[in-house]
Formats: sequence, structure tokens, C-alpha cells
Amino acid sequence: MRSRADAAPAFLYVPDLGERGAALELSPEESHYVARVCRAHAGDRVTVTDGRGATAELRLTGVGARVTGTIESRDQRARARRVWVWCGEPEGDRADWLVEKLAELGVESWQPIESRRGAWARAERRIERWRRLAVAGLRQSRRSYLMDVRAPIRLDHALRELPDGSDRWLASPVGEHRPGPDPGRLQIGVIGPSSGFSDQEAASLEASGFLPISLGDGRLRTETAALAWTVWATV
Amino acid sequence: MRSRADAAPAFLYVPDLGERGAALELSPEESHYVARVCRAHAGDRVTVTDGRGATAELRLTGVGARVTGTIESRDQRARARRVWVWCGEPEGDRADWLVEKLAELGVESWQPIESRRGAWARAERRIERWRRLAVAGLRQSRRSYLMDVRAPIRLDHALRELPDGSDRWLASPVGEHRPGPDPGRLQIGVIGPSSGFSDQEAASLEASGFLPISLGDGRLRTETAALAWTVWATV
Repeated sequence: MRSRADAAPAFLYVPDLGERGAALELSPEESHYVARVCRAHAGDRVTVTDGRGATAELRLTGVGARVTGTIESRDQRARARRVWVWCGEPEGDRADWLVEKLAELGVESWQPIESRRGAWARAERRIERWRRLAVAGLRQSRRSYLMDVRAPIRLDHALRELPDGSDRWLASPVGEHRPGPDPGRLQIGVIGPSSGFSDQEAASLEASGFLPISLGDGRLRTETAALAWTVWATV
Repeated sequence: MRSRADAAPAFLYVPDLGERGAALELSPEESHYVARVCRAHAGDRVTVTDGRGATAELRLTGVGARVTGTIESRDQRARARRVWVWCGEPEGDRADWLVEKLAELGVESWQPIESRRGAWARAERRIERWRRLAVAGLRQSRRSYLMDVRAPIRLDHALRELPDGSDRWLASPVGEHRPGPDPGRLQIGVIGPSSGFSDQEAASLEASGFLPISLGDGRLRTETAALAWTVWATV
């Protein structure tokens, strides 16, 4: 569609896209977004993604409480890079905007980490909110891969399931400054909670091959360090 | 001071430090921070900065509504790097946390920019809040230079007062990916408002030597682009 003055550009998340020629009915949430935020009309074309690399052009056939359309073309994109963020709990509600920013920056997986000094309060209620924020970040950045929002797990459990062939980084004020990482390998960044990892946890991370990385010359908050590491790994 | 369990580490902002041996009385705000947040006691030592490169050790002589102390040693640090951010208006109140993050990351100057599509609503009231956030970021990151929070100015006015000998960057989804900048030169980054710069404004920036720089492979919100550029320039 052509953009209308101060309307949001249309880029939609539709988990079940269907093949070329398929008729689609959008969810109430995406329908509202198309009709009210993008102010689209029947006949407009919008871009949709399934969040797993497929994008398609959708011609709108009806715009109401439930928006309908037809898939006109479909395309599969490869992932540009693979970046996981394992993150301790920041103070207050700072994780909310962090999740939105990581989704915009193209992170593959957001994994909240429980450690001795950080427990992720109210996680079950927050996960749903984070998933909505990940969809908002997908739309905003026009990506074709949705960030995977995972439930919090304990650090020692996460360390048991590390994928082979990944580069592993631990955000640390005493780490070295490093040049950018290899975009062809999975990058895993670990950021401690606001009170930091315990000595034992830091030793476990080191034993699992996580390299200390310095993210500037100051002491950063958890969410600032998570953002800085992600920018370093994605830009 | 030794850190008490779950108390904030003491690092204070005191614009008028005085020389070695001088007696100091902290502002009500810093006094509250020392007494209530850091939970310091008379006899403790805390680090203070004037936000212009000086740091000092302060031995506390009294902890109450107004905290008093004596300067025991004093040191002047050079700036590690010089980074200015000129930024168009993001949506909503997203500038608030952006300002806090830029202060943590060590930006020298935060300059809100007024352009054709971004006007910085309620700027006068927000500047005071931003200055408080800059002080919070200084304390958090233990920096000795306070970020300069400037009042919004028009882009064409800003372009007339560009300092010589600076590298100039324009955040752009169609810019090139660039290797890290020269830490010995002043870096100026420009980020458009949420609706983007007009063609004429973009041409003025180009004519003033601002190079387009890509900050990843997605379309980023104003505040995300400002953060990403700053991380690129500081990490």
C-alpha cells in the first residue's frame, strides 16, 4: 500500500501464511492494526511475514473487524545472522523496553536467566507481554524472523544445553574490547542481573567457553549492557 | 565505603568540589542518595566527581538531611572520547530512557534537533528531567564527565555551528556498514525524528559532511537508532 500521511507503514505478522493464491483472515489484533493504525482499505497491498523467514504480498479484500485478503506472492528469506541473548533481571520494568529493542535489532532468542542474585519476578505474566513487544519490534523493523521469547531458566540448566559451534560472550566491565564477531556463527551473549553473577556462576560460564567482553569504559546497567552487546553483535 | 548488602555503591555528583582538605556540604538530593540509597555512615569514604573530569575521595563527617565531608584526595581524568548525539524526536516518552542510556554510555552532548517532521513537544519541562537522568547515568556508570543536556535547536541552526575537525554520521537504513570510528576525533551522530528528515534536510546534512551509516539490517525506531549509533561510536 502507499503510505497515508502519519499512518504506520503496513507490515504484518501472520503465523500461518498459506501458499500463493490462499485466502487469509487476519487475527483481531492484526486486523485492528491494519484498519486503525495503518488505515488501509480494501484493494491495498500489505506485506506480511510468518516470523519464520517467509514474507508475502497480501491484497486486502475486506477491511473491518476481521481483515481478509489474498496472498499474491510469497518469498522465503535466509536469516542474516544468529544472536541469542541470555539476560539476568534488570531493575524494575526495564526489561520491557529492552525486549522491544532486542526484537528491533534482530535477536533470534531472548532467554531470561535465573541466577543466585536475580530471580525474574512475575515472569509468567511478563512473557505474554514480551511476546507482544517482540511482534511490535518485528513489524517496526520489518524483519521476517520473530524473536523467540523464552521462559526464564536457571543458569546451570541453560549451560547444559549449549549448542555446538557457537561463540560465547560474557558482558564484563573488566573484559577486553573485541572486534566484531563472525556473522556466520551463532553468537550467544550473557548479561548478569543487576546485582551481578556470583563467583561460582562466573566460573561456570568461563568453563563453558564464555569470553569476557568489555562494552565501553563505564559500569553499565543490565539492560544497557544487553543492548550494547546486541548492537556490537548485530550492527 | 564498603558496599552494604543491596545498597547502591556510592558515586556522587558534586559540581563544586573544592581542593584537597576542603569541607563539603552535599545538596539535598545527593544527601538523600548517600544516606538512604547508599546507606552510608559518618567515617565512610565515597567517590565524588564534578562532572568535568575531576574525581575525589570524600570522607563523610556527618550523615543527615545534609551530608557533610572532607576532600581527602583529588584527581583529574582526561576524556576517553568525544561523542555528540543530535537526535530527532522519538514517539511518546521514549526519549527519557534514551537520555539515561546515552549518559551511561558516555556521550558528551545530547542535542535534540527540531526538523520539519519533529518538533520536540514540551521540551522546556523535559530538559530538567533529562538533566536528572544524565546525573543518574553518571552515577551508575561512574563517569567523571556529565553528559551535557542541551535545549532543542533547529537543524539549520545546528549546521551553522559545526565544530571543525569532527567526524559526522547520519543514521540511515540505506547507509553502508562502517568499521568503528577514530576515538581521537569528535564524533557527531545525527538521527532523524520518527517520521524521518525531509529530502531538503537530508541534502543539507550531506552537504555538511554527514556520512550515511547503516545500523543493522532492519528499520529502527529513532531511539533504537540513536542507541545503536552511540554503541557503535563508544564500545
